[in-house]
Amino acid sequence: MEGILTEERAAFLERDFYQGFIKTCGFKLDVLERGRAKSSLEVTEGHSQQDSFVHAGVMATMADHTAGYAAFSVVPEDSRILTLEFKINFLRPAVGHRLICRAKVVKEGKNILVADSEVYSQRDGVEKIAAKALVTLMAVPATALRA
Amino acid sequence: MEGILTEERAAFLERDFYQGFIKTCGFKLDVLERGRAKSSLEVTEGHSQQDSFVHAGVMATMADHTAGYAAFSVVPEDSRILTLEFKINFLRPAVGHRLICRAKVVKEGKNILVADSEVYSQRDGVEKIAAKALVTLMAVPATALRA
Amino acid sequence: MEGILTEERAAFLERDFYQGFIKTCGFKLDVLERGRAKSSLEVTEGHSQQDSFVHAGVMATMADHTAGYAAFSVVPEDSRILTLEFKINFLRPAVGHRLICRAKVVKEGKNILVADSEVYSQRDGVEKIAAKALVTLMAVPATALRA
Amino acid sequence: MEGILTEERAAFLERDFYQGFIKTCGFKLDVLERGRAKSSLEVTEGHSQQDSFVHAGVMATMADHTAGYAAFSVVPEDSRILTLEFKINFLRPAVGHRLICRAKVVKEGKNILVADSEVYSQRDGVEKIAAKALVTLMAVPATALRA
Repeated sequence: MEGILTEERAAFLERDFYQGFIKTCGFKLDVLERGRAKSSLEVTEGHSQQDSFVHAGVMATMADHTAGYAAFSVVPEDSRILTLEFKINFLRPAVGHRLICRAKVVKEGKNILVADSEVYSQRDGVEKIAAKALVTLMAVPATALRA
Repeated sequence: MEGILTEERAAFLERDFYQGFIKTCGFKLDVLERGRAKSSLEVTEGHSQQDSFVHAGVMATMADHTAGYAAFSVVPEDSRILTLEFKINFLRPAVGHRLICRAKVVKEGKNILVADSEVYSQRDGVEKIAAKALVTLMAVPATALRA
Repeated sequence: MEGILTEERAAFLERDFYQGFIKTCGFKLDVLERGRAKSSLEVTEGHSQQDSFVHAGVMATMADHTAGYAAFSVVPEDSRILTLEFKINFLRPAVGHRLICRAKVVKEGKNILVADSEVYSQRDGVEKIAAKALVTLMAVPATALRA
Repeated sequence: MEGILTEERAAFLERDFYQGFIKTCGFKLDVLERGRAKSSLEVTEGHSQQDSFVHAGVMATMADHTAGYAAFSVVPEDSRILTLEFKINFLRPAVGHRLICRAKVVKEGKNILVADSEVYSQRDGVEKIAAKALVTLMAVPATALRA
């Protein structure tokens, strides 16, 4: 991958990360490098499903959003990122008090980007993979979204 | 599909639907029939992403959870439903004030169920499809989850 | 959906359908309408997997290729179609002597199209759904592929 | 992962790999270790699509089948493997003379296994990733398939 992620751009993306549903959920952006992002979540009762595990939707949102910012880090500054689709496998019930998500861009096209996104559950210092996703994203000019 | 969904069972599933992350998100179960469920959401700023559309994670959670209760409606009462995986395509940015999700079970196996789940965006009385998902679910004995 | 599928274009696409791997597999294009395609396959031993069912790869290829030509039928004549990704659920082992695939475009964007593709197995006159796919396709100018 | 892959079992699986559609396609099993498999294909005109690239269906079949044998290598000898579903992203048109697929089991459950499967295209000694898949598989007793 060419190009670099400037400090100004990284600072912009970090602010941009926290809005709307992401604030509602409580995700935190821990690391943003070119083509990679890491986020985390302190799990509360407000993230659970009917059997007290973390809801699949929490992990799906985390996998998607973290992949989105990994993608943002490689596109031009006047581009915005939209998720075209994703697929996520839930590998084991997430029971920990903390989730961590690591996403990386695996294909960087001009318009289409593909990212691999993994969610880990932390409990008593042990980290286990809980979900694995493949995310297809599209870079669109910011002007195209303001119509 | 054999069997019926008794009133008692439907009432139990309706209560079971609203917990943890689903309360956080604000989804409402509108209809539950055998093999089918319909849910809705009044969209607020707390559901948005960085470009003011509804966040992909909101639609993914809605598609997954509604599919889950469509699946619950066909399995024995001592079974619980876990999502093994899903895939969701975002067909257009969701800009409406209300989302509607319709899920139906398309394959009812003993252990594995597959559901089709669609999310629609409502705006000024017009309903447009915003996302389409395929969800793979597993029925497990409730006792297996209490270990 | 606007536009029509001219007879000339349909005839071109029908010839274009049969090439390389599709000839190897033996798929037949039965119907091509704007946004929809139907194909079929006479199943032989050469399509089986280790347990004598039709191989998942046969159904995946059929779902993808039929979706591709449904997409071809709605794009300009100087566009080519590439599959970005697909997901397919295998709903039951396919044991019939004939497969049928029905694909339809569910979202027709300028560059990105999404199709729903279903594979049915026929046996003794009874048709059962065997697989269900969601396919994301991209329309690219033919000139872009000749580089 | 516990257990080992005995020489006898590996030899059985190697023979089992080549049947029906896999013979038709010409895939070769190069390596089989516990939880991992590597296969290859000498690309011919019979594997192409309408723009002379390798057909998406070839890569999908390879990703699925190789993942299947990675899964076979970790289940009891009286188990058979069925693909429940998979998702595959095509990262770049495959133009090489040789394809290589590497699959590994990323979650080994009693009944449900998940594998990650990647297809690489080789051309002039350079190997590039062409496709990436996530595959969900189910282990079933061999006796259940003979009904």
